[in-house]
Amino acid sequence: MPVDFDISKYDNTTLKQMLSETNSADIAEWINDLEEKQAAIKLFRLLPKDEAADVFADLSRDMQESIIAAIQDYEISSIIDELFLDDAVDFIEEMPAGVVKRVLSNLPREKRDMINNFLKYPEGSAGSIMTIEYVDLKAEQTVAEAFNRIRRDGVDKETIYTCYVTDSARHLLGVVSVRTLLLSSPDDKIEDIMTREVISANTSDDKENVTNEFSKYGFLAMPVVDNENRLVGIVTFDDILEVQEEEATEDFEIMAAMSPSDEPYLKTKISRLALNRIPWLMLLMITAIISGHIIERFEHALTVMPILITFIPMLMDTAGNSGAQSATLIIRGIALEEITSADTWIVWFREVRVATLCGGALAAVNFVRILLFNRWEFLLAFSVSLALFCTVVIAKSVGCLLPQLAKLLKFDPAVMAAPAITTIVDAAGLLVYFGICKFAFGI
Amino acid sequence: MPVDFDISKYDNTTLKQMLSETNSADIAEWINDLEEKQAAIKLFRLLPKDEAADVFADLSRDMQESIIAAIQDYEISSIIDELFLDDAVDFIEEMPAGVVKRVLSNLPREKRDMINNFLKYPEGSAGSIMTIEYVDLKAEQTVAEAFNRIRRDGVDKETIYTCYVTDSARHLLGVVSVRTLLLSSPDDKIEDIMTREVISANTSDDKENVTNEFSKYGFLAMPVVDNENRLVGIVTFDDILEVQEEEATEDFEIMAAMSPSDEPYLKTKISRLALNRIPWLMLLMITAIISGHIIERFEHALTVMPILITFIPMLMDTAGNSGAQSATLIIRGIALEEITSADTWIVWFREVRVATLCGGALAAVNFVRILLFNRWEFLLAFSVSLALFCTVVIAKSVGCLLPQLAKLLKFDPAVMAAPAITTIVDAAGLLVYFGICKFAFGI
Repeated sequence: MPVDFDISKYDNTTLKQMLSETNSADIAEWINDLEEKQAAIKLFRLLPKDEAADVFADLSRDMQESIIAAIQDYEISSIIDELFLDDAVDFIEEMPAGVVKRVLSNLPREKRDMINNFLKYPEGSAGSIMTIEYVDLKAEQTVAEAFNRIRRDGVDKETIYTCYVTDSARHLLGVVSVRTLLLSSPDDKIEDIMTREVISANTSDDKENVTNEFSKYGFLAMPVVDNENRLVGIVTFDDILEVQEEEATEDFEIMAAMSPSDEPYLKTKISRLALNRIPWLMLLMITAIISGHIIERFEHALTVMPILITFIPMLMDTAGNSGAQSATLIIRGIALEEITSADTWIVWFREVRVATLCGGALAAVNFVRILLFNRWEFLLAFSVSLALFCTVVIAKSVGCLLPQLAKLLKFDPAVMAAPAITTIVDAAGLLVYFGICKFAFGI
Repeated sequence: MPVDFDISKYDNTTLKQMLSETNSADIAEWINDLEEKQAAIKLFRLLPKDEAADVFADLSRDMQESIIAAIQDYEISSIIDELFLDDAVDFIEEMPAGVVKRVLSNLPREKRDMINNFLKYPEGSAGSIMTIEYVDLKAEQTVAEAFNRIRRDGVDKETIYTCYVTDSARHLLGVVSVRTLLLSSPDDKIEDIMTREVISANTSDDKENVTNEFSKYGFLAMPVVDNENRLVGIVTFDDILEVQEEEATEDFEIMAAMSPSDEPYLKTKISRLALNRIPWLMLLMITAIISGHIIERFEHALTVMPILITFIPMLMDTAGNSGAQSATLIIRGIALEEITSADTWIVWFREVRVATLCGGALAAVNFVRILLFNRWEFLLAFSVSLALFCTVVIAKSVGCLLPQLAKLLKFDPAVMAAPAITTIVDAAGLLVYFGICKFAFGI
């Protein structure tokens, strides 16, 4: 294409001919380079439908915005629908709120859902779960006008029960519920009855936090705004129910040492199920070898006093269970935002006290049992019970501190659950056990 | 609201102003966080009457009790009377007998009778979480009449967006949403626009099933009927969010071998935390002794070939982790009603295939590792790896079948989770291991 090309010098037939002979990336470059917006738009509209999308994807953001502003809704629909999903997402990522809304609302639902899923909004963000089918009102409208708008447009909206009041730049000014509208007089102005203290989410907020807000406030819907407080979408309670369920499932899976899966169990391929589990099992198997090595170091003692071997499963299992109890409560507390990083040492001190009670009870029962079943060997009973007590205290400390450490390091606390902790407390428990036995029996 | 807020620094007018600008859920959180009970009570009393009830519903049990103890009888009456019935019932269920008596005796007779009726619904039933503040309409009313009714009575209803159509004997005939009402003409008859195929819950239905219906249909509210299909209440989505959260927390706790607790971790007494854990730890400690006895039976073999001891932690941990993975997925699938009893053998066959893949991968790695680190003892490597493979298959079979068996026997499948399965598969794994070693090494 010629530099400083003046399209006004050519008729449409010639232009179409030229376009048909040119690669779409080149056309895009050419359009991008055109100084005159009107000329660029004219040229773009000469493109055949299927090529328009390809060209569009390569245009500058600026030019994309101008074109969207200039063309009809049905043309938008056909272009964006033709785009590869990642291009559509890239495009929508960069557009201002008004353009995003217009584009998304002109797409078939399925496509829109896909785009919403893949969009700029990081996975798991409020932006990634929001929808754009909300009712927006203007502050200066009356209640009667608001009802007219709801009656006219409401049929396509995901919820009509919470309406959002925005200014001309789409800044969120307030919310008003249909309940309030119904209880107001038809002549009341929206600005006089709306709630101005709106609790909203930012597009980048973690969807888990949004879920916690829903629980706390009993919301039906929550507005999602961009960094300039412009309304870009809403999250509705039915999405939140789903998120809450998914988040819990994810935590269950991570805590049981699996990579989380989006699909329901029966719909997941066998190979996928296996792949979600093998790396974790492998990792834990390899770390469990540490415990094996600790035992190896004390092989001599165990050969001299083989009775000591028989307490190993009990010590290991109790350590794992004690640690898992603490870890589970703390991980859940963090997820529900009941426990924050400010509580770290409070939580630890609580767990140490609980561990003292649990460990004491277990040690006492164990002491009596060994005395009864092992010919009153007092020293043996005492050593094993002391080891058990120490193991419980260590396991509960590790179990409550590791998830909080993970949180601090911006990892998912759930990863630090039962299996990982088991491996650590197993090793610690064995060291304590053998240490005590060595001292007690001089072996 | 500021952190570490000292209310003594502010005068009542300022405090009232601050309260009026704050959402009731946030006020409740703030009062809950106040260390000083007197300050908390003072602040609560500054709330306007209608907001006091909203805040009260969100307070911790502890704080509710303190406030009830501190205020006058007539104040109790007005607060509890203002509460939605489900919140009032929740509160009364948690309070000690003395407080309950004082509260009930200060309520109007009608309210007291209703609360007493609600207290009869079994814990965890739809009846126990429903509320009676719904809008009911008559089939022969017009849309205009319906709106009049909503305007007149709606202000006290928990939701107005779904209205219930009943006959004179309170039988549930249909539902109609405010959306439908808004989109209909004022002269339309309710019977012509209502939905007659109503999905309702029975008062005795498990609240977990009700939650699953909500997720499935995206309900805002669901009617609860008695055995004669008479409408007795509704369950609203905000209660469902809470139920879903509680159910997940409960499953987390049970699966980590604890008795579930209603209270948030930081509000639970140390002794209560310990009591929730000790019985389970004790039970599991005692069952772990079985593994100890199995080891004892093979003490001779272990003394002859002490290297065999060092593989025990790895075998036991892998068994526990493999079983926990399967159990977790199955328990979660059952809870979300993705897996039913008809799927038992399908699920088992899936898990066996997954186990073959997982076990195969682990055994292969383990085989190579032993060859490399244990002087190329082929028979040892083979025996341990074979035992590992068998253990994974057994663990996954047990892990998927036990929760389904529990379900069949009407136990909570979550009880059959990780810790219980660990104990069983530990024992099974050790037996397989020693059996193989005995055969291979003739010891």
